[in-house]
Amino acid sequence: MEGLEIILTIFILATASSFAFASDPSPLQDFCVADPEGSAPNVCKGAALVTADDFSFSGLHIRKNTSNSVGSAVTPVNVAQIPGLHTLGISMVRVDYAPNGGLNPPHTHPRASEILVVIEGTLRVGFVTSNPDNRLITKVLYPGDVFVFPEGLIHFQYNIGNTHAVAFAGLNSQNPGVITVANAVFGSNPSISAGVLAKAFKLDGKLVGNLQSNF
Amino acid sequence: MEGLEIILTIFILATASSFAFASDPSPLQDFCVADPEGSAPNVCKGAALVTADDFSFSGLHIRKNTSNSVGSAVTPVNVAQIPGLHTLGISMVRVDYAPNGGLNPPHTHPRASEILVVIEGTLRVGFVTSNPDNRLITKVLYPGDVFVFPEGLIHFQYNIGNTHAVAFAGLNSQNPGVITVANAVFGSNPSISAGVLAKAFKLDGKLVGNLQSNF
Amino acid sequence: MEGLEIILTIFILATASSFAFASDPSPLQDFCVADPEGSAPNVCKGAALVTADDFSFSGLHIRKNTSNSVGSAVTPVNVAQIPGLHTLGISMVRVDYAPNGGLNPPHTHPRASEILVVIEGTLRVGFVTSNPDNRLITKVLYPGDVFVFPEGLIHFQYNIGNTHAVAFAGLNSQNPGVITVANAVFGSNPSISAGVLAKAFKLDGKLVGNLQSNF
Amino acid sequence: MEGLEIILTIFILATASSFAFASDPSPLQDFCVADPEGSAPNVCKGAALVTADDFSFSGLHIRKNTSNSVGSAVTPVNVAQIPGLHTLGISMVRVDYAPNGGLNPPHTHPRASEILVVIEGTLRVGFVTSNPDNRLITKVLYPGDVFVFPEGLIHFQYNIGNTHAVAFAGLNSQNPGVITVANAVFGSNPSISAGVLAKAFKLDGKLVGNLQSNF
Amino acid sequence: MEGLEIILTIFILATASSFAFASDPSPLQDFCVADPEGSAPNVCKGAALVTADDFSFSGLHIRKNTSNSVGSAVTPVNVAQIPGLHTLGISMVRVDYAPNGGLNPPHTHPRASEILVVIEGTLRVGFVTSNPDNRLITKVLYPGDVFVFPEGLIHFQYNIGNTHAVAFAGLNSQNPGVITVANAVFGSNPSISAGVLAKAFKLDGKLVGNLQSNF
Amino acid sequence: MEGLEIILTIFILATASSFAFASDPSPLQDFCVADPEGSAPNVCKGAALVTADDFSFSGLHIRKNTSNSVGSAVTPVNVAQIPGLHTLGISMVRVDYAPNGGLNPPHTHPRASEILVVIEGTLRVGFVTSNPDNRLITKVLYPGDVFVFPEGLIHFQYNIGNTHAVAFAGLNSQNPGVITVANAVFGSNPSISAGVLAKAFKLDGKLVGNLQSNF
Repeated sequence: MEGLEIILTIFILATASSFAFASDPSPLQDFCVADPEGSAPNVCKGAALVTADDFSFSGLHIRKNTSNSVGSAVTPVNVAQIPGLHTLGISMVRVDYAPNGGLNPPHTHPRASEILVVIEGTLRVGFVTSNPDNRLITKVLYPGDVFVFPEGLIHFQYNIGNTHAVAFAGLNSQNPGVITVANAVFGSNPSISAGVLAKAFKLDGKLVGNLQSNF
Repeated sequence: MEGLEIILTIFILATASSFAFASDPSPLQDFCVADPEGSAPNVCKGAALVTADDFSFSGLHIRKNTSNSVGSAVTPVNVAQIPGLHTLGISMVRVDYAPNGGLNPPHTHPRASEILVVIEGTLRVGFVTSNPDNRLITKVLYPGDVFVFPEGLIHFQYNIGNTHAVAFAGLNSQNPGVITVANAVFGSNPSISAGVLAKAFKLDGKLVGNLQSNF
Repeated sequence: MEGLEIILTIFILATASSFAFASDPSPLQDFCVADPEGSAPNVCKGAALVTADDFSFSGLHIRKNTSNSVGSAVTPVNVAQIPGLHTLGISMVRVDYAPNGGLNPPHTHPRASEILVVIEGTLRVGFVTSNPDNRLITKVLYPGDVFVFPEGLIHFQYNIGNTHAVAFAGLNSQNPGVITVANAVFGSNPSISAGVLAKAFKLDGKLVGNLQSNF
Repeated sequence: MEGLEIILTIFILATASSFAFASDPSPLQDFCVADPEGSAPNVCKGAALVTADDFSFSGLHIRKNTSNSVGSAVTPVNVAQIPGLHTLGISMVRVDYAPNGGLNPPHTHPRASEILVVIEGTLRVGFVTSNPDNRLITKVLYPGDVFVFPEGLIHFQYNIGNTHAVAFAGLNSQNPGVITVANAVFGSNPSISAGVLAKAFKLDGKLVGNLQSNF
Repeated sequence: MEGLEIILTIFILATASSFAFASDPSPLQDFCVADPEGSAPNVCKGAALVTADDFSFSGLHIRKNTSNSVGSAVTPVNVAQIPGLHTLGISMVRVDYAPNGGLNPPHTHPRASEILVVIEGTLRVGFVTSNPDNRLITKVLYPGDVFVFPEGLIHFQYNIGNTHAVAFAGLNSQNPGVITVANAVFGSNPSISAGVLAKAFKLDGKLVGNLQSNF
Repeated sequence: MEGLEIILTIFILATASSFAFASDPSPLQDFCVADPEGSAPNVCKGAALVTADDFSFSGLHIRKNTSNSVGSAVTPVNVAQIPGLHTLGISMVRVDYAPNGGLNPPHTHPRASEILVVIEGTLRVGFVTSNPDNRLITKVLYPGDVFVFPEGLIHFQYNIGNTHAVAFAGLNSQNPGVITVANAVFGSNPSISAGVLAKAFKLDGKLVGNLQSNF
């Protein structure tokens, strides 16, 4: 085969098909509950001092207040809430959505894939693939429906029903992180220079300034 | 320090405290939906052929029938149900528990840690640490309570309330696996020899035979 | 310590300090050059058929045309260009920036951290941390300066000099992926509904429509 | 293809065939010998203070006393015995088996696969696959025979000869952990409630109580 | 602190002490025995077709012939000998050493750490740390002694006794690879140019030619 | 199939073809800049104290002095120079080569693969595969050419032009390590015994002594 064909073939192999795996690594001991009195953050409590409370959290049944600009509320349950999650590679969130447009706005998790189940309500959900396709994969979900958001991709959930909506999701990191795209870009501290955002978003500079003052 | 002291110190460091981490690896592409017509199992669908259905599943809102010997029903949502989970390192289950003793019996996930949230009912949950302590870490959970089961450890949930109970859980593997201890030990196919089980469980051989015929 | 204090302590440990590691996994053989005639994408060429060309690429010395709307050009060298990179966890890019405002617009790599060195010109670079801080870490770079962009975070480079600029960067994935934020959000195919974007970006719906038609 | 067929196909792909890999991650430095005088467990000795003794252990040639209820003795050589194993992902054990029924009882390693070689004697070994098959894979081994126990699966070795037996095994974790099934289930501290065990093992409650008092 | 001090401090932290971890990843299913009739190398046998023979190997008790130029013989037991090791991250070797100088010459395993136990004889073993120290960590081992060789470092074993010696070792990769330094450098095919080797090894060119003809 | 055929088939699958993957793990937080005043090396600076300088380095544009015995100079940019690289799995080097034979001598990186781009000059580069083939994969590179060196394999670059040469390279570890083969083998501290090196390299003992005194 000639060079170009090889490049093309490889390109097709690398994009249309694919061949990679998220291995699921294991920790190096049963668990490692961070010791709040330890001399360093990764000193773990002696096993004899660990209790069931180190592995639990309460309150995910409570409907959260969604009276905010986007109409949603995220309740995280990760290593910051459950110290026993340290080294275990898993966490959870509850999301509440106001009726008629409650939005968990476009965001990414830099360190986790997500699997979400709808408990109440009707959600339009979607994620956008990476360049160059930027394809939107989207679906309307009803109670009992499950959807997957691959690691690092921009995704959102939008309440298109006229009732409160609730979802639970699992994420494969003890600290998945959240980057709300609009806030990170237009609301960073300090601000990204207006020239950068005007060119990137094809906006005039004055409008960028207005947007930045809103965040 | 002398040799023994060093050994002792290291032993304490390696057990009482601890110092390891589950890294959360990333896949090598946005996603890899197994192509059911591919020539091999890890040939992925062309990206243009992927649809939202490849990332979704329906039916987790349905109460499952728990009329079986243990009084529980597990509904898995992993790569066998959602092909788009392939390479993403995450999955989910719903568990239903019959009132008054529905039991998800002692089991392990050989390839995942688990985070569980109670939706309905009252569950006693627990896990047992590895040798030599075999400590039981246990707690009663109510709706909205969350609990963590570290990778590979034996754990169970037991409905101690007089109503049906429901829980959802996230697991950090696309295929976490389940080993129900009693079934694997007394119900394997073919059977483990009765001599092995009698000695391990301190039972007489005839009782072992009876047990094996029950599984 | 009481519950709240523990939560607070853990929260501080989990955010102000930190304790995690990118391990650097090794492949399972010396290399695995995808066989373009193989029956499946991860069938590798026989070792005897592999040549030096499978590990090389030419042309990164060529100044690229930056006459486009953002004034920059990215030349990737990953597994799509060098088949021998398959399984090796590394790749490279060259970026050219037009004088006076050439911009590599805000984007993320969902599967890689990046280390960049400036060869020519003067670049303002920056990345934004995840929620809730969304802190901008930014610096002006001159030739010979190196900067790091952590995995999954939004980052950009902006040519603030009046000459052409050039940078090279290494990324720790054979296929790091690129998500240009503005394009993924306003230019996805199909479009994200205007209601979602209007609420997320605090824009009126008509402006969102205009933006979407620009991408 | 219709939905059911796809599910079936995927299920077959996910079970009958398979497609995953244990990557072998590398440490971040040549070695990291825990410093017994360090302020935290993962402070490593200065390289100049490390000696050959940090990487060695003596005594694996010694026949161990197997006069106990199961007739076997395990001598571990992991990070608790060799501090230089820290971060290296490997360890070893010697197992001695009494003649005529010495048993290394059914157990799992929650964090390692194992490869075992018989030095003396005749062992029946086996492991049980996960649900739903719970298939027993078993074989009789003679000196020089090697067998593999996959990560997290229940396995055992049983001396069916009339001489003392000895085996060595490598495990791919610095701290693989051991869960002896019978001990963890019937001998945990505190006890798992008899109701749970009676239902799981299809035993009457009184027998469970007897069993628990034996462990 | 000033810049230089910070750099110095970090340098000391990064070298004298250290802080990284080999995580032990898990496979994505119980096991994956490569199907010799599959259409691609990573198509696994159907679980029902797997037998105990897929996980076993015989013959490690046999003393090997060490009549060769270095006086040693390595018998590998990795995925090439045991197909069931695929995805499990572990393998084993037996090494035989001729009396009075049998040598397993300086080599590296590019993808594994190693733990070795001496069965018979007296071995001087050692490994050399990376630049700039190139420190030799060495010890004389007797039967029952265990030693560790960290991943990727040059190491050797040398029979300093007057009897045949035997060792077994575990390695944390299904395919650890071996690079015998002298053979790779002086015996590559085709040869490395004599100018390169003369300068690297501070030898005259003619001697390099002689050396190359010996390998 | 018979036993031998199966072994052969597996051997071919495991060598001629191949099937493994370097996963690219993610860190557990945005970044972790080691705190030079922390009580332990992996205590990270509070996020509010982190500055852009923690992620940058200057001086890679400076031509380095290559007046040494091999005629090359390596300028590393890893976690020892940029504390913000900690946990990010990436680093960089600049290499300068004297005209007419400047040599980066045969060496390995025990913890990283490398991707190199030539900026100036003409380099012959190569790597040697592992046993038993020890095949040399080699090529002459000109400015703009890129080449890949797989993890752990012996490789070199040799300036065959009559001008100074410069290359940059990315490596997928925060601390890849370097083992210069000749120095590690003939220049270790203390020395490897002459008997070992004489037998391994097929040299007479006196010459080995001379070589050792040169390093």
